[in-house]
Amino acid sequence: MQAPFTTITGFHAVLQALPGFDAAAADAARARNAQLTKPPGALGRLEDLAIWYAGWRGDPRPRINRPQVLVFAGNHGVTAQGVSAFPAEVTAQMVANFKAGGAAINQLAQAFGATMAVVALDLDTPTRDFTAGAAMTEDDLVAALAAGWEAVDPQADLLVTGEMGIGNTTVAAALACALFGGGAGDWTGRGTGVSDEGLALKTRVVAAGLALHGDLTGDPLEALRCLGGRELAAMAGAIARARVLRVPVILDGFICTAAAAVLECAEEGALGHCVAGHVSAEGAHGALLARLGKKPLLDLGLRLGEGSGAALAIAVMQGAVACHSGMVTFEEAGVSGG
Amino acid sequence: MQAPFTTITGFHAVLQALPGFDAAAADAARARNAQLTKPPGALGRLEDLAIWYAGWRGDPRPRINRPQVLVFAGNHGVTAQGVSAFPAEVTAQMVANFKAGGAAINQLAQAFGATMAVVALDLDTPTRDFTAGAAMTEDDLVAALAAGWEAVDPQADLLVTGEMGIGNTTVAAALACALFGGGAGDWTGRGTGVSDEGLALKTRVVAAGLALHGDLTGDPLEALRCLGGRELAAMAGAIARARVLRVPVILDGFICTAAAAVLECAEEGALGHCVAGHVSAEGAHGALLARLGKKPLLDLGLRLGEGSGAALAIAVMQGAVACHSGMVTFEEAGVSGG
Repeated sequence: MQAPFTTITGFHAVLQALPGFDAAAADAARARNAQLTKPPGALGRLEDLAIWYAGWRGDPRPRINRPQVLVFAGNHGVTAQGVSAFPAEVTAQMVANFKAGGAAINQLAQAFGATMAVVALDLDTPTRDFTAGAAMTEDDLVAALAAGWEAVDPQADLLVTGEMGIGNTTVAAALACALFGGGAGDWTGRGTGVSDEGLALKTRVVAAGLALHGDLTGDPLEALRCLGGRELAAMAGAIARARVLRVPVILDGFICTAAAAVLECAEEGALGHCVAGHVSAEGAHGALLARLGKKPLLDLGLRLGEGSGAALAIAVMQGAVACHSGMVTFEEAGVSGG
Repeated sequence: MQAPFTTITGFHAVLQALPGFDAAAADAARARNAQLTKPPGALGRLEDLAIWYAGWRGDPRPRINRPQVLVFAGNHGVTAQGVSAFPAEVTAQMVANFKAGGAAINQLAQAFGATMAVVALDLDTPTRDFTAGAAMTEDDLVAALAAGWEAVDPQADLLVTGEMGIGNTTVAAALACALFGGGAGDWTGRGTGVSDEGLALKTRVVAAGLALHGDLTGDPLEALRCLGGRELAAMAGAIARARVLRVPVILDGFICTAAAAVLECAEEGALGHCVAGHVSAEGAHGALLARLGKKPLLDLGLRLGEGSGAALAIAVMQGAVACHSGMVTFEEAGVSGG
């Protein structure tokens, strides 16, 4: 479906009209959960996840049959500042690897039965170095939001948004700092693995970008336009579309979460349909999740991006929903209650 | 295969001859891991898990094709003391539910492609109340160890051992206390959900049992015989058999871990092929894992048993091994290194 917006104002209007949680479906799921053959609460967080999923799907006994993994790729002018341990051409090389099935995300998507699509966003035209000007024009930003919007499978019942883009932890750090304040050092981490000197450089670059663009806290989409990048905007567009389709989303790591945070800052509650798949080893991810009130499902020290941590968490959601919808009740099983 | 022991001494001899870790296979897996298309270390704990799995399987590029879930059920004379929120007949009712496919563990095993077998151990003859005498004779214990040993599928490549047995958190608490010392209150928790009064009663029952049997710390298998129960012994037997077959094991919650701890206390290193699937909400599970030096993969507040937390962790192992063995190298993909 073509995106129903052609301007930033139009995208704002979409966010203001997002559908809400189906409390009746969630209540019915909660009532079912109370009758299943287990002690009350014994499945812990899996019970809460299943009820949450039921509410967003509007179905008290849902199934997960068609998870989708979307990987968006973009290039960033700020790599000219030397902020990454890898050269910028790796973005395109990894897109080829995703398409050939050789990357981590391919294995994880396949392991958990998810479809996967890769969307490369104008890789030959990096966004502008945000220390020299706005990363994107309004048209660039709207096109990237729309690319994300249009990539979501309307038949999906669970969505993971991932990314690839050399330099994009620098972009995400700048964006998080613009949205939530604090110093550049609070949000800047080692990304793919820069040295101490590299980390100091990244922090200076983030600070320089924020100084150039001034206070962006009141205008999250303008922060996204000024700092970038296309793959972050596409993730935001996809997450918004999933909400319209009532498809729950599993957030991935620092970059994905920074992109998602734009939506929450623009319209409170816009991430109600999102769960944090994991907390990444990228330093500021835990703090960013805390700002959004999201408790991660997994903590396994991943810091790869691509949607990998969220893809692993597909299994947790599958387990939660399989128990909820597949188990029988005490009465059906003839089991004595506690 | 019939178990190669008919006495406790014979089982001890098996433990003393367990096969070790294949360091060459692990080294080869580590070398492969270093070449995969991701920044070094970016898959965090998944990388360590894959290398560990490769070492135990003796295969530098392994696959997980045939995980097995074993659920052992037993009844406990100590339930006469009123230690559980559920009546003892629930054990047999839940076995029927497992066989009919209606329990949580059925859904989780199915979700992650595991075969599942249920072994009910003399449910009509509960073990003796451990506050009145030894829970099992030597023959009882050996039969239960052998039942576990013989239940393991020789073609399995990953094993989960789970349990069902009304009263068995009381048994596990007594066993953990006998193995590791401390007070009864340090190891006793709410199980299926007893009240404050119920918890105080459980703690008194555990203390009474320990007082009756005297110091058991030097003889872990005697502790298992005196305190019970059959399903704990069967899990220990299955975990030992898995080691002989070079099948890695995912430990479940407090009861499974207490049973496994008998092996480690009897023969140091006997649990090298085991990973902790999760940390349960049952109070002392975290402390028990710490005694064994095991860091859990998941922390989702489960406290159901049945193997449920470990079954969920099958997915983590599948993800780790799928990435390790399915990803291509930088050279194969033509991706520039960092």
